[in-house]
Amino acid sequence: MKEPFAKNDLKIAVLGGGTGSFMLLSALKIHTKQLAAIVNMVDDGGSTGVLRDEFGTLPPGDVRQCLVALSNSKKVRDLFNYRFDSGMMDGHSFGNILLTALEKMTWSFSEAIETASDILGIDGMVIPGTLDNIRLKMEWPEVSTILNGEREIDAKLFKHDPRRANLSLVPSASANPMALKAIEQADIVVIAPGDLYTSIGPIMIIDGIAEALQKTKAICIYACNLVTKKGQTTKFSVSDHVKEIERFAGVKFVDYVLYNKQIPNKEILEKYKKEKAYLVRADVNNLTKMGYKSLGFNLLGDIVEPNMSDKFLPNRQLIRHDGEALARAILDIYRIQTKN
Amino acid sequence: MKEPFAKNDLKIAVLGGGTGSFMLLSALKIHTKQLAAIVNMVDDGGSTGVLRDEFGTLPPGDVRQCLVALSNSKKVRDLFNYRFDSGMMDGHSFGNILLTALEKMTWSFSEAIETASDILGIDGMVIPGTLDNIRLKMEWPEVSTILNGEREIDAKLFKHDPRRANLSLVPSASANPMALKAIEQADIVVIAPGDLYTSIGPIMIIDGIAEALQKTKAICIYACNLVTKKGQTTKFSVSDHVKEIERFAGVKFVDYVLYNKQIPNKEILEKYKKEKAYLVRADVNNLTKMGYKSLGFNLLGDIVEPNMSDKFLPNRQLIRHDGEALARAILDIYRIQTKN
Repeated sequence: MKEPFAKNDLKIAVLGGGTGSFMLLSALKIHTKQLAAIVNMVDDGGSTGVLRDEFGTLPPGDVRQCLVALSNSKKVRDLFNYRFDSGMMDGHSFGNILLTALEKMTWSFSEAIETASDILGIDGMVIPGTLDNIRLKMEWPEVSTILNGEREIDAKLFKHDPRRANLSLVPSASANPMALKAIEQADIVVIAPGDLYTSIGPIMIIDGIAEALQKTKAICIYACNLVTKKGQTTKFSVSDHVKEIERFAGVKFVDYVLYNKQIPNKEILEKYKKEKAYLVRADVNNLTKMGYKSLGFNLLGDIVEPNMSDKFLPNRQLIRHDGEALARAILDIYRIQTKN
Repeated sequence: MKEPFAKNDLKIAVLGGGTGSFMLLSALKIHTKQLAAIVNMVDDGGSTGVLRDEFGTLPPGDVRQCLVALSNSKKVRDLFNYRFDSGMMDGHSFGNILLTALEKMTWSFSEAIETASDILGIDGMVIPGTLDNIRLKMEWPEVSTILNGEREIDAKLFKHDPRRANLSLVPSASANPMALKAIEQADIVVIAPGDLYTSIGPIMIIDGIAEALQKTKAICIYACNLVTKKGQTTKFSVSDHVKEIERFAGVKFVDYVLYNKQIPNKEILEKYKKEKAYLVRADVNNLTKMGYKSLGFNLLGDIVEPNMSDKFLPNRQLIRHDGEALARAILDIYRIQTKN
């Protein structure tokens, strides 16, 4: 069996999915070659959803983003992200088509990722959290409300408190052994910023992941989101985020909570307001009461103008982390922690 | 400007298109790393034709075959040849989609080939004969008959003698400077086996190619087809083939004609008959009278069972060269010639 990490260097496992993992991996790869990106496998929207439906394959989208983040060849990165804008492949990214072709050839998503990794010349490894073909389900048992599929849940303004909902995988999924190995061997495990209910939660509920997170000797850091998600995590504080993550996992495993403390200027705040995105409140007292170590950093990156990179999806978040600042914060925490 | 060949090794330029070039390059690469595959650019049938029509790009099919022939990675070769058998990309090979995506990204077919070559890890170089976007035309002026497009000409049973037809490119095309350089620098130029009117002819009529073939110090070898093409080259002898090639070029440039002298057993001859494929008659006396050196070899390979590798195309020829025998024959001729 292949090893997720090579011998000497700081080993970091990043758990997440799309944009958040992409940003973090892009920045971390400057500091270490030993990166394992563990990816949720519930995406069923956009180009990915169409390909899953047409080919019965596993979701390529988030894996593609992580592969691209870890690649050192600009040429091939551009190719993987290239999106056809006409013809039969309209709206599909080349990387998604490549992963789908490789999986259809070999009927093994792991082999597909391995070949794609060779082509991209990446250091590190992208690891599906599970190799089971699953869909996400969110259920409020008290009011008999069910949402089916990542796409549907992602787009929804929740009518009920999501903290009273159950998140599950259909059928239930067991962890990819390589993902467990990466968590076990890592020096640092980072829960990347990302949507609580459609990106981070779906990894936590894979059978075996929570246990591995609890058992690992790695420092487990949660890098909290910058802003709340409209209609889903409205008014959630930092502690509300980490509480939900550990509720999904069913175990306490987070050692450190890393949050943003930077306050943007008025002009930018106005822009945020327009998008109904509010900065996540850092309730440090609550974190401390709950037993977490926590540290705030200046983490705001440039505002990203909306673009229709995936025509099957609505526009994405405008407010982004400063990836390099976040990477440095993670390494700082590791140094502080290992000195003690 | 990049060089088509590196410094030390036998430099061979192979002119042709699809299957014939694929077979020859696959065998030659064992003997030299210095291969330049110069490819006709008139294909407008099959998956290639659909992609040209949908995206306005240059024809990827023959280029893909030559790239795959020169690649040393079985994994990536399989990927390039992988053909989707369902969904929106049904019938398209992955390599064709890759070349199309790369060309659409950069609007440069040469850059597309360069990146694809990196991905495939090839030695040698695949060079489009021209970078102009052209279509093939075949015209019998005496009877005012015109056939338009490679696909149409390829499928036709000619009503009139093709030796009285004009072959032209619309619009007229100028040679890719890299192709001229390869012909100029080569030690051996091989005209690969291939369809006279839809594969080899279309290279000869690119502006500048014939002049380069006449000027080069390379030994120019024509590796004649094994069998005639039904309704097109019926009863053509070896000398009829080379005569047509030099008629297209408008100059005499062939130094050596290499033909098959092996007679297959009865069982195989029966199979050929069923397919209306007849062995090309080696009329050595005519070749000698016309001033060509010529040599016959045992060149028959295994019979290839028909398969529908490209669902847009009819079945291909069953009778194939023994590539390794052909490669050795070419090197033998070179040695004989350079000893004198």
